[in-house]
Order: sequence, then structure tokens, then C-alpha cells
Amino acid sequence: MITRLSTLFVRTLREDPADAEVASHRWLVRAGYIRRAAPGIYSWLPLGLKVLAKVERIVREEMDAIGAQEVRFPALLPREPYEATNRWTEYGQNLFRLQDRRGNDFLLGPTHEEMFTLLVKDLYSSYKDLPLSLYQIQTKYRDEARPRAGILRGREFVMKDSYSFDVDDAGLDASYQRHREAYIAIMNRLGLEFVIVKATSGAMGGSASEEFLAIADSGEDTFVRSPGGYAANVEAVTVPAPEPLDFADAPAARRVPTPDTPTIATLVDRVNAEYPRDDRPWTGADTLKNVVFHLVYPGGKRTILAIGLPGDREVDMKRLEAAVEPAEVLPFLDDDFAANPALKKGYIGPEALGEKSVSGVRYLVDPRVVTGTRWVTGANSYDTHVIDLVAGRDFSPDGVIDVAEVREGDPSPDGSGPLSLARGIEMGHIFQLGRKYAEALGLKVLNEQGKLVTVTMGSYGVGVSRAVAAVAETHADERGLVWPRELAPFDVQILATGKDSAVVEFAEKLAMELSAAGIDVLLDDRKASPGVKFTDAEILGVPTAVVVGRGLADGLIEVRDRASGERSELSVHGATEALVALLLS
Amino acid sequence: MITRLSTLFVRTLREDPADAEVASHRWLVRAGYIRRAAPGIYSWLPLGLKVLAKVERIVREEMDAIGAQEVRFPALLPREPYEATNRWTEYGQNLFRLQDRRGNDFLLGPTHEEMFTLLVKDLYSSYKDLPLSLYQIQTKYRDEARPRAGILRGREFVMKDSYSFDVDDAGLDASYQRHREAYIAIMNRLGLEFVIVKATSGAMGGSASEEFLAIADSGEDTFVRSPGGYAANVEAVTVPAPEPLDFADAPAARRVPTPDTPTIATLVDRVNAEYPRDDRPWTGADTLKNVVFHLVYPGGKRTILAIGLPGDREVDMKRLEAAVEPAEVLPFLDDDFAANPALKKGYIGPEALGEKSVSGVRYLVDPRVVTGTRWVTGANSYDTHVIDLVAGRDFSPDGVIDVAEVREGDPSPDGSGPLSLARGIEMGHIFQLGRKYAEALGLKVLNEQGKLVTVTMGSYGVGVSRAVAAVAETHADERGLVWPRELAPFDVQILATGKDSAVVEFAEKLAMELSAAGIDVLLDDRKASPGVKFTDAEILGVPTAVVVGRGLADGLIEVRDRASGERSELSVHGATEALVALLLS
Repeated sequence: MITRLSTLFVRTLREDPADAEVASHRWLVRAGYIRRAAPGIYSWLPLGLKVLAKVERIVREEMDAIGAQEVRFPALLPREPYEATNRWTEYGQNLFRLQDRRGNDFLLGPTHEEMFTLLVKDLYSSYKDLPLSLYQIQTKYRDEARPRAGILRGREFVMKDSYSFDVDDAGLDASYQRHREAYIAIMNRLGLEFVIVKATSGAMGGSASEEFLAIADSGEDTFVRSPGGYAANVEAVTVPAPEPLDFADAPAARRVPTPDTPTIATLVDRVNAEYPRDDRPWTGADTLKNVVFHLVYPGGKRTILAIGLPGDREVDMKRLEAAVEPAEVLPFLDDDFAANPALKKGYIGPEALGEKSVSGVRYLVDPRVVTGTRWVTGANSYDTHVIDLVAGRDFSPDGVIDVAEVREGDPSPDGSGPLSLARGIEMGHIFQLGRKYAEALGLKVLNEQGKLVTVTMGSYGVGVSRAVAAVAETHADERGLVWPRELAPFDVQILATGKDSAVVEFAEKLAMELSAAGIDVLLDDRKASPGVKFTDAEILGVPTAVVVGRGLADGLIEVRDRASGERSELSVHGATEALVALLLS
Repeated sequence: MITRLSTLFVRTLREDPADAEVASHRWLVRAGYIRRAAPGIYSWLPLGLKVLAKVERIVREEMDAIGAQEVRFPALLPREPYEATNRWTEYGQNLFRLQDRRGNDFLLGPTHEEMFTLLVKDLYSSYKDLPLSLYQIQTKYRDEARPRAGILRGREFVMKDSYSFDVDDAGLDASYQRHREAYIAIMNRLGLEFVIVKATSGAMGGSASEEFLAIADSGEDTFVRSPGGYAANVEAVTVPAPEPLDFADAPAARRVPTPDTPTIATLVDRVNAEYPRDDRPWTGADTLKNVVFHLVYPGGKRTILAIGLPGDREVDMKRLEAAVEPAEVLPFLDDDFAANPALKKGYIGPEALGEKSVSGVRYLVDPRVVTGTRWVTGANSYDTHVIDLVAGRDFSPDGVIDVAEVREGDPSPDGSGPLSLARGIEMGHIFQLGRKYAEALGLKVLNEQGKLVTVTMGSYGVGVSRAVAAVAETHADERGLVWPRELAPFDVQILATGKDSAVVEFAEKLAMELSAAGIDVLLDDRKASPGVKFTDAEILGVPTAVVVGRGLADGLIEVRDRASGERSELSVHGATEALVALLLS
């Protein structure tokens, strides 16, 4: 195939789009691959669609390879199945809802667990029919609160979602592993540097889940790794609880005045100076900070949550949001403190919270707050703290919540060394759902003994349109896009520079010969200056450029590698063969 | 490829779906190609999706062949562009509308004229950029009042829509012709017997338009043809107005009592008996029937429309709906007559209507009601008619409306002989839109003289998911689906009948050899009776079945042609080669 830039529907832009924060968004728009139709909603122009189709093909091939069967569900779905699993409500504002002309409720599908479950229920009835894996590559909808970064987090996007159905846990394990292997193959073929991390299951429910993250500084997800191989999304990190301490010899708690200690550091200095600890100095990690939030549950119910954690750490909002999902977290504002006078802002202590003197507050503490630990904390009076308040002796929280920030150097939960932090783009998520959906929707089959048993399910997603962005994001440089060969919209871009008819003729001839050899050629045949053609070629990001220009008089053309920037000259004699060898290698 | 029926996600059903009215709906569901998710909304199971993908490929190849470039727009679209062209309102209840979490209005795209116009406006600015044709194969939404016939008329469906952009009318003509040729190629490759008919433009606007109808008795569209080559959708037929008649010698109109004449026939008998016409007997065609409707315009405005037409014809509701679009037609009920006492049901006459004594009624007549024609019609009093009421002398309607039923044998509008009627499925529709959208949205380019001119557009649609249904509809027989080779989900279905291990082994070997030769094989390897396998093969509709069974002992297998029902025996020696030759022929 030869595509001519003179007629291709594309325009490169000289300016970044105003809302572009990340490289993939900037370059995919500037290079004319995508175009915004509405916030978080994009159109695919010819170049972008070609790359998208290549991602789809890779995903399809790898899913077919594990025996998954392709189907396609509608995007417009009836309310009832989502009502049965409570997701109609739980999805909250993330769900696009609408009514048809008769007033029936519909939604635009964010994922299709319910529909697949019902379909299998409809057709299958015996263990002999299982295992079964079905998938679709389909358009999904999520009304993101903050659509951002172009197609990296859009409101309409293409996803491959698949679902496995097994009669028992061993079967689910096997289906999960097969998907895991397929996902590894997909990530490798996409040319993404990636990591597989433990993840939380969130609204999806179920037991085990892992995420495939493409490593990228601009990624929205933070993950941790240890030298010993532990890896987890920061939301999924579990801080191991220390052993309880013996508090028989701990001093009694006492209230002390602490005016003018606006920060943890000034508080620590003050207590070390005036109320030194017997065994070692107090540190920020010995202060117990209590932070208050509102939780709003789908349907509107509100509660107050107080979180006690070591004063040298902040609450990680993403970890908190993941921990309390589907509830939404809202800040506790000055008005809220005014309405709850027992909560003294800056001096909230567990005694008040633990004794439930403040009605309706749920008090959860960091896993490090184990029995026997001694704390400096708020005394529920302004300018006053309490020291040597001992967990399990002086207060008993309602439970544990693991939402403190995770830090570079924290010990790995599995003891495999200090954690390091990095960022990534969530490319895939695999879940062992278990029986949640099958139970809610009554998907049972007869087992070998003739008994009806509930089917166990897995759910597996890969972001297909997001993959285009993730590859762009991790491969672009300061001059434009850089596509790996397997995803590039063209194999080679031929630039005819100069008006000499010999140049044009040679470029045309070369394009024809390469095309005949099965190479997908983009021919820049525009009446434009060499400078414009060079710049555009770098923006478009085709892996190899061939420049036919001045050198032709000396029997030479130039080959440029977009990724490395390397340039080499090639004799026009045997140029086609040499290029075919290079491009099909 | 070998696909095994033992693991393929499919179940054939013994019973018709309760709501199935047409063959394609019945068999696509019973054969496990599609499954209903909600009224008018279907899921594609593996077999259906394979056929759909083949239709998509044909359409894509033919669009690429005329130089159209593929893009893909979102389905979720902002309100504003559709507001600018008034289609946000004009689409009425057919449009799915929704709001996002911020309360912004969106719609699910029924067609994308506005979005393509804006995209081209965004990127292009010169006549040098044109002509341009863009297309997409994409999911569309229409909230049909009566979704029916499975995927033949669904509410979520796949369409190929394309749009041409030209600087002048000659360019539009050329783009339109190219699309027309491509559509002919598509219809031929789909194996559809089709007709190209003149059509109305409806909500789309624009001047010329034609429809591609697949000929099928169960089709929703009625079309006419003449021996001389005239062909039109019945909505688009224009009845030529006869020459006006001289009415100098016509008798004066007179009111006559006509009790007990409940039908046109009894009325004609009565007037022939009591008030005979001077030149020839009165016929039903000499009676003028006046029928009343409510029209409701988008936005809610209502008017009353009275239609006068020869009493031997009915108003064709589809022609009426097409003629008054975007207004909706509602019947005029007894309550409405009660509220408008001047309209005497059964005795409405043009004198009242023409004189506007009934306020707010618009009175339009059939083209045959020309000046000088003499009528028997209602006298606006019960049990009374008026005879010899002459058009142009005794009454003057507000205008002409061409909505009477078209009948077998009516003269063709172009004089090319009597019309015959048939039914078809609308598979494609091509429009010369002209400048309606470009004007509304400001799409202009500089012409060769450096002047800004408004671009002229064409719009072209093919029903992709509907094509699956149309082919099924026109090819199915009483035993199941019958696929033409180019669309079949598999090239051949091998049935291993009998439990003899030699049968199974030979079937497996044959499947492997055919697969190695590039044949897509469905192998029925289930533990089921020969009868079940035969029945299922006929339901599934794969063009060729190979039966490996009892004959094997004698060195023979059987080949069955699904379409013709022909059976022939084949020696196992050289069977693979013979089948490859047959299947790839």
C-alpha cells in the first residue's frame, strides 16, 4: 500500500492543545491521530485508527491463543441486571444513565460482568460446558470526574474485557493464569515496559487481583517494588502490623499544655524538652494524628470517619478512596467542625473518639497503632495534648484502616527489602471475581455429581485505546511520536525533497517497489519545503524515514531511524532490497 | 483454523423466539448468532460476530477502493452541533439524549453529518484539499418507536456512514457517483438481489437521494418499478398532475340527501341511480374523500391537516409521514371531532375546508384533484353529499399533497409503463446533501479565485449489522440459515457421525488437512446423534457440509450443499484435494 501525504486526511499542528498535560495527548493531537469531540471524548483520525486497529489485532490474537471466544455486547444496557448486583447504585456518578422514549432506564456499559453472566446462564447448564472464556473488544463509557490526558483517561474508550467461567476454584486459578500469560504477551508485543502488581478489587468485588502497569512517570498509578520481587499498586500495599508491646511498665497517660505547637515538629520538640520519654526521644512517629472525613455512600447515606495514624505520615487519598469504595470521601470542613463541637480541630484525641462521646464517628487506626504503643496525641481540648496514651490500655479504636502514605524505603510487607516507588499507567487488570456475580444473577450448573453449583468467575480487562496513548506516552521524544514497528501506522515514510523531477520519479518508483514487496508506505509527495517534511516526519513518528533528495545526483538516498536518530546513506542500486530487508527484519 | 462445536459458544434452540416475525430474526436467534439484550438491542455471539466482521471487511474494502479514508467518531456526542442544525429538536423521540455528571447535554449519534462537517472545517481550508471522502464503521443509536425483526431494525446497530466534501456541484456529482458504484459492488458481494430506487431525503435534507433496497417480501419498504426502468421508494413516487379541464359546461353543484350510504360503493350506487352523470357513470374515483389528521411538530406545535383524495384510494401512512417529516402524524379521534363540530365525520367537504370556516385547518389535495374535475363529496352535514362540485370553481385547496396509495398498474410518473409493487429492506441510502450542513456550521474553503465558498456535501450510509440480517432473511429456508460463501462463518462443517474411532480419526485428519490448506473448518466433534448433527448443520447454514460416517467403511464420505440440498459421495482418496478445489473455487 502507498498512502500519499498530499491526500491523507491529516494536518500537523504547530501548537500544543491548550489542555495537554502529558506527551501522548500533546503529540497524538499535534500529529493528527486524534481530535477532541467533547471533554474526555475523542475522534480517531486515519493515522490514529490504524494504530488502534493494530492494538486490537494484537489483543485479539493473544485472546484467541488462550481459547477465549469473541462476542460483542451492546453498549446500551438495561438497568435490571445492574440493579441485581447493586452496581446501578454503586457506580455513582461514574455511570452514564439515560431513559428511552418509554421511560425505561438504561446505562452505557462501563464493564459487562452482569451481561456475560446472564448470557452464560442463558445458554449453559452443565459442568461439561466449562471452562469457558469469552471476550469482546468494545466501546465502554465512564463519566470520569476528571477526564484527562486525552485518550489516556477518556469517557468513551475501547476496552478488551473478558470473563472466565469455571465450576471450581482450581478451574478459576487456571483460567486466571492463562489470562495472565496472555496479558504478558500483549504487553510485550505492545513494546511496553511493564510491571505486574497486586491490586485492590474495588467496585468489582472478588478476591485476588493484579494490575499490569506500563512504567511511565506521567502515569496516574503509584506502585511499589522491593528488591525481593514484591510489587503492588500503592492502594494494595498492606502494612504488616507489628507485634503488640507489653505495656505493664508504661507510665500513666497525662494531659499536658502545648500551646504554640502548630506542627508535628514543634510538638515533638516541646514534649522532648518538657516531658522526655524514659527510653528514647519522642519522634514524629510517636505522635498520633487523627484526621476526619465524611464518607458518602451511594444512595446518599453519610458517616464521619476518623483515622488515627503516626503523625509523620499523611493519609494517602487514593489508598483511602480505594479502602472505602464505593463510598465517596469528602473533606471535613470548618463548618463541619462547627457542627461537631466535640471534635477540636488540631487536638482530636482517641479518648473522645474511642469512647464514642462524639456520636456517629467511626474511629479506625493505622496498622502500626497496636496494643502497647505509647502516643503523644490530642487531648480533645485546644492547646492540650496527652502523652503516654497507650493503645489497648487507654483507648480501643473501632478497627484498622491501612491508608497512610507508603514511602520510599518502607519495609516490604513480605520482608523482601525496602520498597521503592514509581509511577505507571494501568494497562490491564485481572480479577478473580469468584461467585459474586454468579450468585447475584443465579448462574449455576450441574456438577459431575448432578448437584447445582454456583459458577466461579474471573474478569479481565485491557485498555485498547489507552494502549495507543501509553505507547505514545512512553516512546515520544521532544520532536514527536516514535512508534515501535508492530504498532506504527506505516512501515516507512518516503520524503521526496526538492523539485527535481528525478527526485519525484525515484521516490515514486521506490514507493511502488516497496509496496509491491508488502511494505506499507507513506509517501510525502506534497509541494512543501524539505524542512516542513522533516519536521512532519518526526511528529508523525513512522519508524523509518527515507529521504530522496540532493544526494540522488550522487546515487545516494538517506535512511533515518526515528527512535535512535541515526542516519545512514544508501546507494540507489539495490536500495529496494536493502530497505525490504531492513523493514521486514 | 479448526473450530470445534464441542467447545464453541453456541446453542441451537428448538423453539422460535416469541417475538420473531421474520425469518432472519428467527434463525439468527435459533442458530445462536445473536441474542437479545433489551428490546431492539442485541449481543453478537461468536458465529454472528464472524459474519458481521466479514460484512465489515467487504464494506471497508469497497470504501477504500474509492479513496474514502476511514476515521472513527465517538457515539457519545455533544448537543451543540446538533443544535446548530436543528436536528437536536427535529429528531424528536428517535434520539437518545442524556446528561453527564455536570448536567451537560449529550446524545447517542444517529448519524454524524454535523461532526464530520466540523472536523473538516477544523482541518481544511482550501479547494486544494478537496475532494475528500471520509467514512466510519461505527455503532449508531436510534430510539425506534417500534424496534422489530431482531437486528433488521434495532436501536443499537452498526453502520458505515461516509461523507463527501467538494468545492462545487460537479464535484459532488462525481463523489456521489463513486459512492453509488461502491454500493453496487457491496450489494453484489453481499449476494443480495437489490434495486436502486429514488428516495425522499427526509430529516437529512438535501436534494437528490437514492436507496439501495434488498428485495424481500418481509422488507419494510415498498417500492415501485416500471417496465421502462423507473424505480422509486413508494414514499418518493410523484403522481403526475393531469391537465386542467374546461368546466364551462359543468352543471352547477347541488346538495343531495344520501342517507344509508356508509361506503364509497353504496354512495356511488346511490348517486348513479338518483343523480346520474351526463357523460358516464360516477365511479369511486369521482368521489372526493377528505381525511383529517393531527400533525405534531418537534417542539410540540400541533396543526390539523385535511387531505382530499379520490375515494377509491387510501392515504398511504408512510407516504404521509415522509411528506410531513419532521412532524409526527396522529389520528383524528372522536374526541377531536367533538372538539371541532364543524368537521362532520364522514361528510367533510372542501367547501367548508376551503373557506376556512373551520379555523386552523390546512387543506391539501391529491395531484389528481386539478381544476375542472367534478366531484361527489361531503356537504358538511350528516347524510348529505354535494355532487358536481368543481375544483377551481367551487373550491380552492391550500395546496397539493402526494400521499395517496400507489397501486399495482398505476402509470409510471415518467410514462415508462404501468408500475408494479414489491417490498425491500433498505440497505443503503445515498444523499446529495448540498450545502445545508456546511452552511449551518460554517464550513467554507478558499476557491481557486481566492474567494471563500461554502462546501457541498454528500452523505452515504450502509447498514452493516442490518446486512447480516438481510442476507439471512433472503437466503434462509425452512430448515435454517443459508450463507453465501463470502459471508459464511466457516467454509465447511465436518460432521463426524457414529462412534467408530475410524470415523472420528478420519474427520480429525480431514479437518487438519483442510485447515492447513487455508480452509476455515467447523468440526462437529460432539457426542451427539447423527440426527442432532444434521439438524444443527442445517440451522447453522455453513455452505458445505461433509459427513463422515457409515460410508467410511466403503471408502466414501458425503458432501452436502446447504443451498441446493444436493448430496454427492466422495472417495476418501483425494478427498482433501477435491474439497479444497470445491471450497476455494
